Amino acid sequence: MNLTEYLFTRLRELGVDHTFGIPGDFVLPVYAVQDAFGMPTVVCSHEPGVGFAADGYARIKGLGVALVTYGAGALNLLNPVACAYAEQSPLLVISGGPEVAMRRPEVYLHHVVKSFESQINVFREVTVDAAILDDVADAPEVIDRVLRNVISQKRPGYLEIPRDRVHSIVAAPIGPIAADPFAPVVHEAALEEAIIEIRAMLAKAERPALYVGVGVRRHGLTAKVVELAERLRLPVATDVLGKASFPESHPQFAGVYMGALGDQQARALLDGSDCVISLGVLRFDTNTGFWTDRIDPSTLIAAEPDLLRVRHHRYDRVPIDRVVEELARLPADSRRPQPRFAHPADSPVVAAEPGSALKVAEIIGLLLGLDQSLYSFVADVGDCWFIGLELRADVFLAPGYYASMGFGIPGALGAGVADPSRRPFALVGDGAFQMTGTELATMVDAGLRPIVLLLNNNSYGMLEALDSPRTYYHRRPWDYLGFARSLGFTAERATTAGELRFALDRAEAAEGPYLIEATVARNDLSPFLSRIKAHLAEVKKAAVVLG
Amino acid sequence: MNLTEYLFTRLRELGVDHTFGIPGDFVLPVYAVQDAFGMPTVVCSHEPGVGFAADGYARIKGLGVALVTYGAGALNLLNPVACAYAEQSPLLVISGGPEVAMRRPEVYLHHVVKSFESQINVFREVTVDAAILDDVADAPEVIDRVLRNVISQKRPGYLEIPRDRVHSIVAAPIGPIAADPFAPVVHEAALEEAIIEIRAMLAKAERPALYVGVGVRRHGLTAKVVELAERLRLPVATDVLGKASFPESHPQFAGVYMGALGDQQARALLDGSDCVISLGVLRFDTNTGFWTDRIDPSTLIAAEPDLLRVRHHRYDRVPIDRVVEELARLPADSRRPQPRFAHPADSPVVAAEPGSALKVAEIIGLLLGLDQSLYSFVADVGDCWFIGLELRADVFLAPGYYASMGFGIPGALGAGVADPSRRPFALVGDGAFQMTGTELATMVDAGLRPIVLLLNNNSYGMLEALDSPRTYYHRRPWDYLGFARSLGFTAERATTAGELRFALDRAEAAEGPYLIEATVARNDLSPFLSRIKAHLAEVKKAAVVLG
Repeated sequence: MNLTEYLFTRLRELGVDHTFGIPGDFVLPVYAVQDAFGMPTVVCSHEPGVGFAADGYARIKGLGVALVTYGAGALNLLNPVACAYAEQSPLLVISGGPEVAMRRPEVYLHHVVKSFESQINVFREVTVDAAILDDVADAPEVIDRVLRNVISQKRPGYLEIPRDRVHSIVAAPIGPIAADPFAPVVHEAALEEAIIEIRAMLAKAERPALYVGVGVRRHGLTAKVVELAERLRLPVATDVLGKASFPESHPQFAGVYMGALGDQQARALLDGSDCVISLGVLRFDTNTGFWTDRIDPSTLIAAEPDLLRVRHHRYDRVPIDRVVEELARLPADSRRPQPRFAHPADSPVVAAEPGSALKVAEIIGLLLGLDQSLYSFVADVGDCWFIGLELRADVFLAPGYYASMGFGIPGALGAGVADPSRRPFALVGDGAFQMTGTELATMVDAGLRPIVLLLNNNSYGMLEALDSPRTYYHRRPWDYLGFARSLGFTAERATTAGELRFALDRAEAAEGPYLIEATVARNDLSPFLSRIKAHLAEVKKAAVVLG
Repeated sequence: MNLTEYLFTRLRELGVDHTFGIPGDFVLPVYAVQDAFGMPTVVCSHEPGVGFAADGYARIKGLGVALVTYGAGALNLLNPVACAYAEQSPLLVISGGPEVAMRRPEVYLHHVVKSFESQINVFREVTVDAAILDDVADAPEVIDRVLRNVISQKRPGYLEIPRDRVHSIVAAPIGPIAADPFAPVVHEAALEEAIIEIRAMLAKAERPALYVGVGVRRHGLTAKVVELAERLRLPVATDVLGKASFPESHPQFAGVYMGALGDQQARALLDGSDCVISLGVLRFDTNTGFWTDRIDPSTLIAAEPDLLRVRHHRYDRVPIDRVVEELARLPADSRRPQPRFAHPADSPVVAAEPGSALKVAEIIGLLLGLDQSLYSFVADVGDCWFIGLELRADVFLAPGYYASMGFGIPGALGAGVADPSRRPFALVGDGAFQMTGTELATMVDAGLRPIVLLLNNNSYGMLEALDSPRTYYHRRPWDYLGFARSLGFTAERATTAGELRFALDRAEAAEGPYLIEATVARNDLSPFLSRIKAHLAEVKKAAVVLG
C-alpha cells in the first residue's frame, strides 16, 4: 500500500469515517487516494468551518480529521486548531505539501510564505506533534507516533504529505498502533496509597461532592463516573468546559459550576463541600468565574490526566482513568440518601404577558422543555453559550475555554456527521453567525436536519454587556431568514414566547434543516451573564479583566 | 499621550484613515482609545475578511491595519497575513493581549493556546517584525521600528498591546519616524557604473522591452516607469502579480506575461527581446507559467528592491527606486518609433447566437468594454482571476502569488474604503464566494457601491480543469441572488451575453451595491487557463505540478 493508504487505514481503525476539508492543488493527490480508499470528505464552505467541524466530530468520535491544502488552506485553519489544543480535542490536520524535490531555497512556489518550514513551525505552536512525511522509510512509524500522541494527549497533531510522497510504497500496518515505549508506567503503589487516603477522607466527609470536567468526556469515562456517583451517592456539578461530561438529566446532577457566577445550586454544593473530588477539571479564568471559586483546597482531590492531587500533595503517574476505576469499586455508601435535584424543566417558565417581546428566561424555559435526549447541543460564544449552560443536555459542545466565536454552526455540522442518531441543535448569536453561518450550506449538503436557534440582539451583545454601548458593537441585522433560505434551510422568526414555542414545534417536526431567528433585546441577559456583569462592575475591573 | 494614542498618531501620519477589525475582550481598551482618537474601524463579518480587507487597503494606500483581539481574533487572521507577506503588502496587525501582570506560567486565561508567546511565535513566521509592547520605556521606539520595517520592506508587521499597557503614558512623537541607522547606504559608484552598462546595452539592443512587476506598484514608481517607458520608447509587459503596476490603457502596454502560458503578445515581446529591463518582478512557479519563461538571461537587467542584477553579475546596494530614477533621465531614444499596441476592446467580441449560453470570451469582451478608469478591479483565485488578467485596468488587485481563495470580496471592500473615487469591481468564482461572501454585508455597512461579478460554474472549476471531474469539486449552487439580497445588495442573474450586457448597464447605473451572477459552463475556460491546462496535460505532470 502507499503512504496515504497507510494513513487512512490507521484512521479507519481509530473510528474515523469522514474527513472535513476543502480541496486545493497541493492536496489533490491525497484526495484522490482517499476517494479510492472509500472515505468521504465533507467539503465545507471555508477552512475555519473545516476546523471547527472536524473538532466537533473529534469531541464525539474521539478523533477528527481536517484535510486541506498547503498555505492558503492549512494556515486558514489555525484558529480552530488552537481552540482544539486549548480544549483538549484530538484533531488531526493533514496538509498537502510541495514536493520534497522542490524544497530548495532558490525555488519559489505559490502558497509558500517565508520558507518551506514556515507552516510546520506555525503548527508546532498549536499541536502536540507535527511532522512532514518526507522520509518514506520512517513514515509509518511517524504516522503512528503522531496519531498515538493525538489520541493519548487529546490534543491536535499535524501531518504534512509532500506531493511526491503521496504514492510512496510502505508496508501495511501489522496490528494496532504500538504503545509508546517511553510512556510513564502507572505507579501502582502510589495509586493504592492514594485510594486509601481518599477512602478515609470520604469516610469523614459530611458533604462530599463530585466536580466533573472535560477530561471525563475526553477520556471516555462518563459511564464509569455515573457508576461512581451512584455507588458513592455523590452529588455532581460540572465545570463550564466539561458541561455534559456527566449526563445532566441524571437526578444527582446539580448544575454547572462557575465559582460565584455560575449555577447557584452547584456553587452551594462545591463551595460548601468538605470533600470535593474533581475529575479532569481545567482551572482558568472564565471556568472559575474569574477566580471566584471557593472550593476548600485542604479537602480537594483532583484527578488530572497523568497525576492525582490530594490536598497539598500529589501522586505522580496516577492517571485519571485508573483513579475513576478504583473509586467506582469502593463499597457503596449507605450513610447518605441518594442525592436528588429537581429538574429545572419542572419549574414553571417565567410567565409573560401574551404578545410581549420574547425574554431570555422564556427561551431557556422552552429549550428545557424539549426532549434533550434527541439532540447534540452545540453553542457558540456569546450569551447563547450562557443560555446553553442552563440546559440539561447529554451532549453539549462549546468552545468553553478558548472562547472562539464561529464554532456553533460548523461545530454542529461535525456533531451531526459524527452521531447521526441525534439532531444537531445549534445555539448561535448574530455576531458569531455572521462569521461562519455559511456552513449551513454544508449541513444541507451533508444531508443533516439540524435545528439552528439564532439569537439576534443586533450586536456583539456579550461585549456590550460587559462594556458600555459603542457603535462598533452594533451588528446590522441581515435578512437572516432570506440568508438561511438561500442556503437550503426552512426559516422563520420568533418575536414572542408563543411564536418561539410554535416555531420549535415546527422545527422538531420538520424533515429538513430548520432555522429560527429569535429576537432578543440587547439588555436582556442570561442569568450567567447577568452575574458576570454584576461581578465585573462590582470589582471595577471590567476594562482590565474582560474588556 | 498614551502608548495607544502614540501608535494611532503614527498611523495617521502614514496615511491610515481607517482600520479593519472585529472587537473582542482583549482589544477593547484599544478600540476605546482609537474611538476617542477619531479613527473609525470597519467592523467586518469574520477575521479572514478583516485581513484581506486591510491588505486590499494596504495595496492602495501603502499601509493597512487589522485590529483584532488575542487568540481567537489574531490567529484567525493568519492566512491573509501570510498572503500579504508573500505578495509584499504592508499590513500591520495590532492585537490586544493579556496583561503583563497576568503572564505567569500558573495563570490560565481564555484565548491562550500553549503559552503567552504562542501567538507572537506564530506571527514571526509571517511578518518582518513582531513585538509585544510590554515595556513602556521603549514602546515608542519599538512602534517606530516595526512601522519602519513594514513600510520599507513592504511586508506585514505585528504589534501586541497588553491590556495593562494600553493607557501607559509615553512622550508624543517628535518629527517623523527616524530612518534606520543600520540601513545600507546606496552604493553611488555602483549605481553609476550600472547605468553606464545599461545604457550601452540599450544602445546595442534592437528589441528592448520593459518587464514590470509588483515592486513598481509597492515602491510607488508607476508614474516614473511610465515616464521611463515613454522616453526610451520601450514596449511594456507586466508579470501576473504585478498586473496594473503599469497603466494598462497605455498604448505601449502589450499584456500580462506568464511565460508560454500568458498573453501571447507579451510572450513574443519578452521572449523575443534582446534586452529586457525587469523591474520588481518576483520569479515563482505560476508567475513564470511553470517555468516556461524564456527571457534570455544574458541580456536581462533585473532591478530588485535592494540590488540590481545585470546579465550574470550583480550590483549590491543599488535599489530599484534609484535605478528607475536614473533610467528615466537617460536621453530620449529616437531611433525607434513609439511602440503602440492595439487595445483589445477595439477588436470585436466573439459573436454568439442570440440567446445561446454565456461564454467566457463574451464576458471578457463585455468587461473590456467598460470604462476601466472608473473601477478598482479585484479578482479572487480561480478562472475569475485569469479572466481578470485580460482586462486593461489601472487598478487590479489579486493574490497573484500566494493564491489564496477568498480574497475577492473583502479585498474589494478594502480597495473601496482606501480609494472612494473608484467603485470596487470584484471578480469572484462560486467556490471563493462561498468562503468570504458574507463581507458583502460589510461593503453595505461601509456605504460602498461595488459591482460584484460572481462567475458561477458550480464547482472549484480551476481544480477540475487541471484534474478531472471529481465529486468533491462540485459546489452546490446557492441561491446567490437571495444570499446577496439578504445582505443588502441588488442582484440579478445573467445567462446570456445579452443579459450580461444589460445587467452591467444596470449595475453601472445603480446607486447602491450590485451583484451579477453570471452562469458559466464548467468546461468553458479563459484563454490563460486553457493554455495552462494544455501545457500541464502535455508535460503529463498535472498530478505533480499543479494537482
